[in-house]
Amino acid sequence: MINIKEFSAGAVAAGIKYKNRPDLGIIYSPCPCVTAGVFTRNKVKAAPVIHGMKRLCGGNPYIRAILVNSGNANACTGAEGLAHVERLTGVAESALGLNPGDVLMCSTGVIGQPLPVERMEQAISALAPELNKDGLSDVAGCILTTDTVKKEAMRRFECGGAPLTIYGMAKGSGMIGPDMGPPCATMLAFILTDASVKPGFWQRALERSVEASFNKIIVDGDTSTNDTVLALASGAAGNSVISGGNDAEVLQVHLTEVLQELAKKIVQDGEGATKCVNVLIEGAMDDNEAEKIARTIARSPLVKTAFFGQDPNWGRILAAAGRAGCHLDPERIELLIDDIPIVKNGTGTGSELEAKAKSAMGNREFMAVLRLGLGKGRARITTCDLSTDYVRINADYRT
Amino acid sequence: MINIKEFSAGAVAAGIKYKNRPDLGIIYSPCPCVTAGVFTRNKVKAAPVIHGMKRLCGGNPYIRAILVNSGNANACTGAEGLAHVERLTGVAESALGLNPGDVLMCSTGVIGQPLPVERMEQAISALAPELNKDGLSDVAGCILTTDTVKKEAMRRFECGGAPLTIYGMAKGSGMIGPDMGPPCATMLAFILTDASVKPGFWQRALERSVEASFNKIIVDGDTSTNDTVLALASGAAGNSVISGGNDAEVLQVHLTEVLQELAKKIVQDGEGATKCVNVLIEGAMDDNEAEKIARTIARSPLVKTAFFGQDPNWGRILAAAGRAGCHLDPERIELLIDDIPIVKNGTGTGSELEAKAKSAMGNREFMAVLRLGLGKGRARITTCDLSTDYVRINADYRT
Repeated sequence: MINIKEFSAGAVAAGIKYKNRPDLGIIYSPCPCVTAGVFTRNKVKAAPVIHGMKRLCGGNPYIRAILVNSGNANACTGAEGLAHVERLTGVAESALGLNPGDVLMCSTGVIGQPLPVERMEQAISALAPELNKDGLSDVAGCILTTDTVKKEAMRRFECGGAPLTIYGMAKGSGMIGPDMGPPCATMLAFILTDASVKPGFWQRALERSVEASFNKIIVDGDTSTNDTVLALASGAAGNSVISGGNDAEVLQVHLTEVLQELAKKIVQDGEGATKCVNVLIEGAMDDNEAEKIARTIARSPLVKTAFFGQDPNWGRILAAAGRAGCHLDPERIELLIDDIPIVKNGTGTGSELEAKAKSAMGNREFMAVLRLGLGKGRARITTCDLSTDYVRINADYRT
Repeated sequence: MINIKEFSAGAVAAGIKYKNRPDLGIIYSPCPCVTAGVFTRNKVKAAPVIHGMKRLCGGNPYIRAILVNSGNANACTGAEGLAHVERLTGVAESALGLNPGDVLMCSTGVIGQPLPVERMEQAISALAPELNKDGLSDVAGCILTTDTVKKEAMRRFECGGAPLTIYGMAKGSGMIGPDMGPPCATMLAFILTDASVKPGFWQRALERSVEASFNKIIVDGDTSTNDTVLALASGAAGNSVISGGNDAEVLQVHLTEVLQELAKKIVQDGEGATKCVNVLIEGAMDDNEAEKIARTIARSPLVKTAFFGQDPNWGRILAAAGRAGCHLDPERIELLIDDIPIVKNGTGTGSELEAKAKSAMGNREFMAVLRLGLGKGRARITTCDLSTDYVRINADYRT
């Protein structure tokens, strides 16, 4: 059982979209937690995102609990949607014996439907007394939508003179396409640690780790209205407060690892995905151009359907790179699938190597390495294939 | 039968990819034609594109014939690919009794394979004596790849004191995603007219019409290595040479109409497409932002799968608009499917109107009109849905 000092948690079936499926959860801390948050940069923001951003930008970075639901995103719901967030966080605050502003809310699910607030109020009141130290995994389960598996990650390490733990849970399967630059995120993720940290440092640390993890994955390239990452540090480990220096670096490394593990799990569980593909660009003019090219390849429907068909159709990868609006000399291009070179000097290396690449593409995970031979720019984006199941899932989503 | 003074044409089965399917064509003019061309802006350009751009930028805008093949794009084929273009245009020039440089070549099909030049040489020699005035539709057929129907359009009108004709043929079904700004194009299209025009005017006229047609469609958003539009004006109509003024405007209008008709036929025949959707943005800050938002919606996999599922999932359309990086006030947004308002003030108008919209989305063509209420910016992009068949076609393309 996962257990992070001094958090308790639990989940319950509130009947938000489906019956008898846990869809509402609470994570609770007995003491105020230093809280960092990053949110979607989509101009269309869901009510809980608007509420959460306002709350965390208000100069008081301490919260006590997260209220989360799946089945309904509470997005594009206008003033009523915001009122629902106020009302439900208020109910949770009362039920947990907390002060106004101590609870943040996150939602995920269908856009444009009002929340079933009465049912949710009853669920919150029933759940609050049942929270327990082993309930985190139940919350990780109740936040799933089209996800097929729970996504959790944990690291234990020594830092600031004490053994620390960072635990994270995430959900996300479709509408996964990060907008760049903090503060932003690409899905729902809750990071919990017993570390003692300074608020300003903790916010910057989260932004940095998000940039190196969730902001480097693409499932379909669509950016959600509800993307939120919250990181709560309880301080229960009793370490010396971390705000910079070597301790900060150690914490950052482990935080990034947790987020990267969660990010990868999101891609592996991408809607309809059968493969996880690491697109690595080397030798671009600079890192920016490398990332633009990697993203263009990772979003190309023709590249992604070729991945699905296990077809080393390198022409599509080169064509996608060529339309990214970056420097490119076709005659210098090399392309490898894992370590199999299928393009040299901009043209194919023959059917034998292609056959080997085809076989490598049968694995659940492989690399596509594009070397441009122009400069030192590098980037890596992790993506998945585009399958008939992706279309089926999303053509039928609301029915 | 389509017949444009004084062009002759024909097609033959050269066995380039499939047996017994016409895949090589020639369009021929007995006199030099004023020729305009726009080409893909993809940095990875196929050999015939490199050859054609060089030929047309050389200061001599007169050509006599187009040699075209399907089944093989001759892209990413290095120096050998360029040598093949030289060799095959040379064979065509000899067979047609023309001078070096009189023939332009276009190719479409799989990337990265050498052309079967011997078979193509024999086919050219056999075809050259067989060209005839009724052969244009045969060429329109031989250029198809994953297309399911021929695409042709024609306008007859009075201009410069003579009755003129503009005829166009096009191919394109997948890898359809125009790069913006001339000179560029999105697929293969050949425009033939008997009009007498000045070269500089003709090139600018073609660029303008391409911008208003092919550059405003998206199937999958991938930009090809081979996109080419060639426009040949024979002058056989005997009109006074058009270079500006009212005649130029009349000609431009009809040219744009022909290109728009062909562009729409490409979307209607998009790979796996079941619906043609006109995405219209009104009230954006400016036209540029309107076009960015329209393109983001038209490329969104979640929006396109909802179109396929006939699901008026307006939340996905708003979410796509929100990530376009443009000005947006969610609370002012209105969305109509045809004339049915399903979003007002940024939120849904209820299940009754959604049911009507769902029914409208069952048609082969409908409008999605997004009104932002911010300014006077407008744009229109024509796109199609994303179906399971799109994935099937592209997962299996090379097998």
